[in-house]
Amino acid sequence: MEANQFKDFAKEMVDYVANYLENIRDRRVLPSVEPGYLRPLIPETAPQQPDKWEDVLEDVERVIMPGVTHWHSPRFHAYFPTANSYPAIVADILSGAIACIGFSWIASPACTELEVVMLDWLGKMLDLPPEFLASSGGKGGGVIQGTASEATLVALLGAKARAIAKVKGEHPEWTDAEIVDKLVGYTSSQSHSSVERAGLLGGVKLRSLPADDKHRLRGDTLREAIQKDIDAGLIPFYAVATLGTTSSCAFDKLDELGDVCNEHDVWLHVDAAYAGSAFICPEFRYLMAGIEKADSFNFNPHKWMLVNFDCSAMWLKNPNWVVNAFNVDPLYLKHDQQGSAPDYRHWQIPLGRRFRALKLWFVLRLYGIENLQKHIRKHIGLAHYFESLVKDDDRFEVTAEVLMGLVCFRLKGSNETNEMLLKRINGKGVIHLVPSKINDVYFLRLAICSRFSEKEDIDISWREVSATADELLNTKTACQANGQTNSKVNGQVNGKVNGKVNGYHS
Amino acid sequence: MEANQFKDFAKEMVDYVANYLENIRDRRVLPSVEPGYLRPLIPETAPQQPDKWEDVLEDVERVIMPGVTHWHSPRFHAYFPTANSYPAIVADILSGAIACIGFSWIASPACTELEVVMLDWLGKMLDLPPEFLASSGGKGGGVIQGTASEATLVALLGAKARAIAKVKGEHPEWTDAEIVDKLVGYTSSQSHSSVERAGLLGGVKLRSLPADDKHRLRGDTLREAIQKDIDAGLIPFYAVATLGTTSSCAFDKLDELGDVCNEHDVWLHVDAAYAGSAFICPEFRYLMAGIEKADSFNFNPHKWMLVNFDCSAMWLKNPNWVVNAFNVDPLYLKHDQQGSAPDYRHWQIPLGRRFRALKLWFVLRLYGIENLQKHIRKHIGLAHYFESLVKDDDRFEVTAEVLMGLVCFRLKGSNETNEMLLKRINGKGVIHLVPSKINDVYFLRLAICSRFSEKEDIDISWREVSATADELLNTKTACQANGQTNSKVNGQVNGKVNGKVNGYHS
Repeated sequence: MEANQFKDFAKEMVDYVANYLENIRDRRVLPSVEPGYLRPLIPETAPQQPDKWEDVLEDVERVIMPGVTHWHSPRFHAYFPTANSYPAIVADILSGAIACIGFSWIASPACTELEVVMLDWLGKMLDLPPEFLASSGGKGGGVIQGTASEATLVALLGAKARAIAKVKGEHPEWTDAEIVDKLVGYTSSQSHSSVERAGLLGGVKLRSLPADDKHRLRGDTLREAIQKDIDAGLIPFYAVATLGTTSSCAFDKLDELGDVCNEHDVWLHVDAAYAGSAFICPEFRYLMAGIEKADSFNFNPHKWMLVNFDCSAMWLKNPNWVVNAFNVDPLYLKHDQQGSAPDYRHWQIPLGRRFRALKLWFVLRLYGIENLQKHIRKHIGLAHYFESLVKDDDRFEVTAEVLMGLVCFRLKGSNETNEMLLKRINGKGVIHLVPSKINDVYFLRLAICSRFSEKEDIDISWREVSATADELLNTKTACQANGQTNSKVNGQVNGKVNGKVNGYHS
Repeated sequence: MEANQFKDFAKEMVDYVANYLENIRDRRVLPSVEPGYLRPLIPETAPQQPDKWEDVLEDVERVIMPGVTHWHSPRFHAYFPTANSYPAIVADILSGAIACIGFSWIASPACTELEVVMLDWLGKMLDLPPEFLASSGGKGGGVIQGTASEATLVALLGAKARAIAKVKGEHPEWTDAEIVDKLVGYTSSQSHSSVERAGLLGGVKLRSLPADDKHRLRGDTLREAIQKDIDAGLIPFYAVATLGTTSSCAFDKLDELGDVCNEHDVWLHVDAAYAGSAFICPEFRYLMAGIEKADSFNFNPHKWMLVNFDCSAMWLKNPNWVVNAFNVDPLYLKHDQQGSAPDYRHWQIPLGRRFRALKLWFVLRLYGIENLQKHIRKHIGLAHYFESLVKDDDRFEVTAEVLMGLVCFRLKGSNETNEMLLKRINGKGVIHLVPSKINDVYFLRLAICSRFSEKEDIDISWREVSATADELLNTKTACQANGQTNSKVNGQVNGKVNGKVNGYHS
């Protein structure tokens, strides 16, 4: 493809995607295709000769769009939001053209240096303690990870390296395997499944501790668990606090957990994947009280701060534990400037990395802090608006305190009724929600996801929920009048959801 | 940013990047900035109010470009290539606008389904055995990973799960920890450092075995190592064969290794990160003889097949071992279509994933197989051309057989002289190379990287090497004439490189 063709094609695509996004409301949010829909729509093999770009563009509507779940539609309320903005899309055009692999400083100094400074900008926007910022001149600093899952794993591996080093100092006769076998990490039953997975990948025990009645992990619970493990001869080394759980957007009591971790020299990682973006607004920072006691902190601008995936921001007070854990190549890839700038390959699981800081730079500059704050406040406002609509309807109940852009609610009554309600809602495809379950209570999660969402959109979503409830309850009443049992109606439900959480944590 | 502003901005950016790429030769390939150059060029904090997009675009030249290493310049010969093409950049505009997170089928069916079919297209282009392809109707199939490092780790974790399951069947009394402690993996001393890192991350022993005089791992070496470990009561479970090593682009004898692995039920993973793209040309497939004996195969279209990073293609004969190893959430994120299409979150380390198959689709269609083959053949032809120039100069020697787009060469004489040569070349910044060292012999690696590279560019690169050698050898002669020793001249060299390999493996 020549440069002139590229310009034509790219500009057509720019018009296409602007049109797609501005009119996204008109599309059915959940596709109605069946598995295997796509294969028959395209050839069985790649073409020998080039196709025309005009044909490729046409095929986007014919082949791709029928199978797209429209995450940026105001009708999309599933999981948590994923970010999408015009400045980020433009930044990615530039990133794709420069296409450097920023694994070391010399491999493209701008790629590393912009990332260092952007993580400082962002950290200041959240009012993170200076120990986390590179600009403070200490050891600390930030890095862009691909996903929060990776950040959790990276922190765990850093914590593991720190613990092994410490224990080896006390017990030089113990092997690494013996030490690792004694290590224990902690998290809440409400934390994301990726925390458990990090434990599996890291090969260490990870305890899932019970949350309080507001689904928060408390300091006393952690203290008790740690003491029990110490008494059993084990070595507590790592804990994950979640700020904004996936199931119900609960906030662990970071302040309490921080004290316990500091007492026991346990690495405290804070996972604020979704809710962290809200801390750019001072009025929500009370939810991160105690952050100065943490060792690492992570949130995803690619969720709620308008920076397209992937851009998961992570800060570490002392990255050296991670760098040393990952540094299997101390003798090569050396360059003269080593040590005076981070070589980010040692901060992450993969070796390669795109120039992702450009997205952050473009978004921060082209929105400005004030507009990003407005975006957060608007979403939270819309969530409270939906909450008020639910509360005004006696048939429903709100099942968790609404703090951010997530409303957890259900029809008063059985789990089965609510499962049926959700199945009907998603079956119609006008709006899309996913459920969750805590302590065997099944509920629906409505997340405000789209940057296009307005009050009128929330009215439409509520009407859809309310009207579906009408249909369901009328059907049930009619069935009961006909002598049928609820359970028979409920027996039609095959879209069961079990487990603690339904969301993504990318 | 409104849609109309986006259109203006994005189209200006399209023109900017086309201009950047078409004139990339004019820029100094290696930047001359010092660490910390960027911070003073931009404000200390993000702006409160939005900046103008025109200012952001202007700042690309002022702030970013001075610190960019131009990986797509024909003067760039370092590491291995990373891909960059116009169709891939356009595909990413679309991917950024759809911005779905394809962790499960229902989260965006098109995202999963296009990936399944594109990996079939690609597998057929390489003539992979049908057991690797989803279209064969068996268990096998492909997936896009972020990097080859991740693919190596994913394969190791699948192999580990398989081995644990098997050993548990034979020794139900052994704990997981006891089994893992006995597991041993194997790779060559020439394989990439990410293999060693995968062993570290996976918490298993990984032996680095010696290569033969052509830097290839041989079957007998592996057989001997496995037997020794079995005799010692250990459990061989995993081996990595490299097709196209980073240091010298050597090809392990896959056919021999496959036999040994199959005899001992050892999972064989093939890492063809760079060279795998060449297998779209039938004449190079002799280098992958034995592929049918492997359990998993990986190469990076984002290296040499014009699909922008990240797009690392991986195929597994039986993905279930990986899926089960990663599936910590069997009871949730369920959807009605589960089982009839892959939920790719179980095939990878992170949970989230972008719609990357679009890049592959656009590139395959808009180049066509023939033009992609031409691209590979042209690069290999240019490498042989450079090889001939080196061989025509008596002062130099070629240190490894040239099979792909990499030429390993050195001045006859000491390592120190070659270190000095490289330092002078990179110091001038006209071309950029990195060195490597095998068996204590230091050499220079010249990789053909840019899709813009022509014969005239190779002439320029050779002239730069040759002229720098002239200067260096003249200086040395002059110094010797003045009674100075070589070692004193060599003492000026501070850019040392140690270790086995200098390349990236993203």
